[in-house]
Amino acid sequence: MYSFSCDYLEGCHPDVLAALCETNMEQAPGYGDDRFTAEAIREIREACQDDSAAIHFVNGGTQTNQLVIDTMLDSYEGVLAAETGHVNVHEAGAIEFSGHKVLALPAHNGKVAADDVRDYVHRFYADGNHDHMVFPGMVYISHPTEYGTLYTADELRDLADACHQSGLKLFLDGARLGYGLAADGTDVTLPLIDELCDVFYIGGTKVGALNGEAVVFPRGKEPSHYLTRIKQHGALFAKGRLVGVQFATLFKDNLYLRISRHAIEMAGQIRQIFEDAGYEMYIDSPTNQQFVVLANDDMERLSKYVGFGFWEELDADHTVVRFASSWATMQEGVDELRAAVATCLKKTE
Amino acid sequence: MYSFSCDYLEGCHPDVLAALCETNMEQAPGYGDDRFTAEAIREIREACQDDSAAIHFVNGGTQTNQLVIDTMLDSYEGVLAAETGHVNVHEAGAIEFSGHKVLALPAHNGKVAADDVRDYVHRFYADGNHDHMVFPGMVYISHPTEYGTLYTADELRDLADACHQSGLKLFLDGARLGYGLAADGTDVTLPLIDELCDVFYIGGTKVGALNGEAVVFPRGKEPSHYLTRIKQHGALFAKGRLVGVQFATLFKDNLYLRISRHAIEMAGQIRQIFEDAGYEMYIDSPTNQQFVVLANDDMERLSKYVGFGFWEELDADHTVVRFASSWATMQEGVDELRAAVATCLKKTE
Amino acid sequence: MYSFSCDYLEGCHPDVLAALCETNMEQAPGYGDDRFTAEAIREIREACQDDSAAIHFVNGGTQTNQLVIDTMLDSYEGVLAAETGHVNVHEAGAIEFSGHKVLALPAHNGKVAADDVRDYVHRFYADGNHDHMVFPGMVYISHPTEYGTLYTADELRDLADACHQSGLKLFLDGARLGYGLAADGTDVTLPLIDELCDVFYIGGTKVGALNGEAVVFPRGKEPSHYLTRIKQHGALFAKGRLVGVQFATLFKDNLYLRISRHAIEMAGQIRQIFEDAGYEMYIDSPTNQQFVVLANDDMERLSKYVGFGFWEELDADHTVVRFASSWATMQEGVDELRAAVATCLKKTE
Amino acid sequence: MYSFSCDYLEGCHPDVLAALCETNMEQAPGYGDDRFTAEAIREIREACQDDSAAIHFVNGGTQTNQLVIDTMLDSYEGVLAAETGHVNVHEAGAIEFSGHKVLALPAHNGKVAADDVRDYVHRFYADGNHDHMVFPGMVYISHPTEYGTLYTADELRDLADACHQSGLKLFLDGARLGYGLAADGTDVTLPLIDELCDVFYIGGTKVGALNGEAVVFPRGKEPSHYLTRIKQHGALFAKGRLVGVQFATLFKDNLYLRISRHAIEMAGQIRQIFEDAGYEMYIDSPTNQQFVVLANDDMERLSKYVGFGFWEELDADHTVVRFASSWATMQEGVDELRAAVATCLKKTE
Repeated sequence: MYSFSCDYLEGCHPDVLAALCETNMEQAPGYGDDRFTAEAIREIREACQDDSAAIHFVNGGTQTNQLVIDTMLDSYEGVLAAETGHVNVHEAGAIEFSGHKVLALPAHNGKVAADDVRDYVHRFYADGNHDHMVFPGMVYISHPTEYGTLYTADELRDLADACHQSGLKLFLDGARLGYGLAADGTDVTLPLIDELCDVFYIGGTKVGALNGEAVVFPRGKEPSHYLTRIKQHGALFAKGRLVGVQFATLFKDNLYLRISRHAIEMAGQIRQIFEDAGYEMYIDSPTNQQFVVLANDDMERLSKYVGFGFWEELDADHTVVRFASSWATMQEGVDELRAAVATCLKKTE
Repeated sequence: MYSFSCDYLEGCHPDVLAALCETNMEQAPGYGDDRFTAEAIREIREACQDDSAAIHFVNGGTQTNQLVIDTMLDSYEGVLAAETGHVNVHEAGAIEFSGHKVLALPAHNGKVAADDVRDYVHRFYADGNHDHMVFPGMVYISHPTEYGTLYTADELRDLADACHQSGLKLFLDGARLGYGLAADGTDVTLPLIDELCDVFYIGGTKVGALNGEAVVFPRGKEPSHYLTRIKQHGALFAKGRLVGVQFATLFKDNLYLRISRHAIEMAGQIRQIFEDAGYEMYIDSPTNQQFVVLANDDMERLSKYVGFGFWEELDADHTVVRFASSWATMQEGVDELRAAVATCLKKTE
Repeated sequence: MYSFSCDYLEGCHPDVLAALCETNMEQAPGYGDDRFTAEAIREIREACQDDSAAIHFVNGGTQTNQLVIDTMLDSYEGVLAAETGHVNVHEAGAIEFSGHKVLALPAHNGKVAADDVRDYVHRFYADGNHDHMVFPGMVYISHPTEYGTLYTADELRDLADACHQSGLKLFLDGARLGYGLAADGTDVTLPLIDELCDVFYIGGTKVGALNGEAVVFPRGKEPSHYLTRIKQHGALFAKGRLVGVQFATLFKDNLYLRISRHAIEMAGQIRQIFEDAGYEMYIDSPTNQQFVVLANDDMERLSKYVGFGFWEELDADHTVVRFASSWATMQEGVDELRAAVATCLKKTE
Repeated sequence: MYSFSCDYLEGCHPDVLAALCETNMEQAPGYGDDRFTAEAIREIREACQDDSAAIHFVNGGTQTNQLVIDTMLDSYEGVLAAETGHVNVHEAGAIEFSGHKVLALPAHNGKVAADDVRDYVHRFYADGNHDHMVFPGMVYISHPTEYGTLYTADELRDLADACHQSGLKLFLDGARLGYGLAADGTDVTLPLIDELCDVFYIGGTKVGALNGEAVVFPRGKEPSHYLTRIKQHGALFAKGRLVGVQFATLFKDNLYLRISRHAIEMAGQIRQIFEDAGYEMYIDSPTNQQFVVLANDDMERLSKYVGFGFWEELDADHTVVRFASSWATMQEGVDELRAAVATCLKKTE
């Protein structure tokens, strides 16, 4: 049974695998001091149009978020995030484990509004007791968000302004960044992200790699002794080559964007299938995650034909489910979905 | 100028001071191994009607909250609290510093509702991803709350049920516990708290002592090696006698409740003064904290005659202010307040 | 230039790579819930002769050590380790980052002596102030040690006795475990380790895998909610398949031991080359790491022909250097080393 | 039975108690914003001859050490201390609880040698793997040490040089500072300590106060947002007046030094008593702690007449015991000791 339940169902893109095979027996020094990592850094700097970006590779998203937030904040600072943000809900307290509070802001389709940041900061400093409170030190956003939505360039600029006017840092979690950059109609580019953020990461695990995320500190502004800090968090790769080879491949000849574009096209077909069948999307997502509202009976029937993810109960009779495409989604899989929908769903409203 | 700005403006109750003077030069071993601490423990056990309660003394409230929450929770657990709760807002991240997330619940006049706890726990375990989330391990309540309100015995029983049915612990922050126990109409007693809670503390700093809070583990159910855990948190008194003498005095002949009752009577007069002058109370508080809504002009004028605390902006023209009484509040002070209100406040609406 | 500088210079064993290629496009659920991980667990349980072992996969050694120590110890406990132990010296404080003290014991060629453990525990409990001290809660050993040495079965039994008589846990860091199991003359087997330890890990990164370590809790004795604890540490793989496939391959048909044996044979040749040339070994290592004492001039000359690791200054004129073999070491590389030694080293003493 | 078992057996100096009584009912704002604290700061600045010193008051020694070390170090740094230092042995892991490693140096009668610091730093930076190790960021010393010994001004200068040449901070734990400053023959003064250290604290708990330690950051060099950092550690006094009144009294008219001098004189008599009886001192201490080597039989007999502290076993037949004097030691108590020694001790060697 073909599955759309998440975007990390397969291994890695064939070109990435080929590169791993080709370089497998070449000897390379450890801890990121290898030529592959150097090559990956060069490629990413070029893609970001930032010659001095400091770049480090970490195994997964939660680790990256914990590392970045803990090492960028002062000990008395917390991180503002949408109440639906990954760091606030789905990281098992990894941020608090490292001593920092997540300060929840309202979520607007998964996004943080610049004015909510301004308002929070204003109320914080207006409060005579703020020395007894956690200082806001950073804004965490995900792009695409956990709901597949995207910031516009103007929204991102506004957010960066709101942050920098108050001395806050802006951190963009790009676990699915490729699917954001390749979406239709977006005006957010990698160089723009590099220009506006204080730190961000480019996701590999969900976009073509076996594992690995690239943390980028624009213009070389990383905290001191960063390798030691990574090691202290248990996050330093002995074989840095593993992620070096993968990211060097993903960023050669635009592969990262090309395979992301494939996911967008598959997601467009998925969306069309449901819309044609008269279903409503829960949220208007231009990226690889599509959230559909299904009557519970329909959901039950459909689940016998294709895999998808349970997202949340909408009401007693309806459920929001997620269909995720990825670089790996096959046309045959989407065709199976089309047939399954035709066979077993009758819009019940 | 007499002040009502908080309930820790003076030193300690004269009887407590007398006891410190009398015992000052007596030699006593350190770290709580002295006869005064033993006496305080006996008195508190008696007041709680719990012969086997384990009791420890800590310097202040935030320290106590950090210590109790950190040592009672497993590492993967967080603490549920009202969004207005002290641990969520005014402890500068002391809970997160020790690695735990505060999981905010709606506040109902500062209180946590048992059904909100049940609902949170239900949704948590219903979520297929809950292994990626912080487990709810404890409910934190304050009694009186930060808004001066009180739980009823039924509400407390319901909350304890909601906790214990789901394996959660119930922790009651009693920084102002005396003012709750001495309030008119309350049916919550120390033995009831001891019966229902897994841990609670009896505040000294705000109720007659120079410093010190008594942490009570009913029926001796304290985590193992508690002295070591206190020491590790930097919270162990070398001269345990200092708090031992104070609590032994406060719990002899019911002094703690008698001096708390004084504060309640003073608070009643304060409330009457404002109501007689046509002012509205922001919240209906039966304890020592009275929250009054003042027009900003009135607030400005009154502030030249008596001290009080700014609480929060209500709207552009009105502010909520706090008048706190305590064991130390003098009738002369309240009379000054009455005169000041008569002189300078004209209800503006 | 061929290098012996460490044992993580190449990618992964060709069979492992082949398995990754074959399974690459198969869809599999995340977070270790895939069939490859299930297969790896089955194979490792069989190799350990422990049907109920609980097994989890983590990315690297420092992460594993931090995770295991933090989750197995109570908050007031520390871990005993040789002063030369990896957790005491080369993990950038990752253990302390999670709140635990490393309690250093004397190192005997990198090993911990059971009697030193007994002595430490005896002195600890004999000290009237031990409630003000960090409780010893675990003994950490590495096998092979950082110096390539091995425990005998008797030493391991004695150590386990010393631990268990005092309620301490025994944790074996097996980053290079294969090279220990495959060494000549060892009587320590995987089932014996499983029998004696409370937790141990089987290293993949240095023994045939691209990345990954297998944490084993013998007889299913893992701390509760372990997946959540792993996630909280930022250590949970989204694509658990990546390590699942690798360990399933390594433990099929004894591959792990066979490739480890190759490293031992290569290490034997390396040792012979130096001994034939009249050089002394710094330590008598039966495993893949060989420590040679070189005159500084000789070291300088040799470094132009082959790569090796600087270990420590012995005296003003001599240096200890490390030659590490691995599953990947090529006979041609060893032959190059032989030629280089013949060409450029003249024993100077 | 009179006791010399430690230097925190009594309450506080009568003048301090009198000041607490006099000021008891005066209203004062919380959190250190009161006139007593301001007065204490003025007095201490004057005693230190440092008009811009930033000064904060904390409840006890372990709390202070945890707070200072955690807030002065970067996250990847540890603190060098004598292996016998309080932070390394007797704080139940409070330093590690806040994430930092204690890096043990050899102890020379409880003291750290400047050359050991230089050597440690040299070896650290010479090690090619130091990025994988905990960076030395601070040197912790106690003055007097845990063994009652004192640094000379030259030793302190040398230590400060060793620190500052390598970018390390120097932290002096003055839990018993008065007894050091008042000792015979010392050339270390408060202004000198202020000149050489980056942070130090002046102990109150053991030198005349009920509780409280004064943390001094010379020349105003405190970390930013220090009140918030103190609060986050649970270490902020609500009633700052309690320690404010005490330190204002202790530093008025040189009281701190005068009462410390009394302890020194009492310690001199204690020492003389044992030397006259033919006993050896374990260590040559010019301060209030005197360490005597007693045959176990003698120790047993003497313990029925006076109280003293067990320190450590010297050999099978001899024990090191501690007699501590303090500001509170009474001549009558010392006379009792003299009589007891005369009565029951016969030097056994």
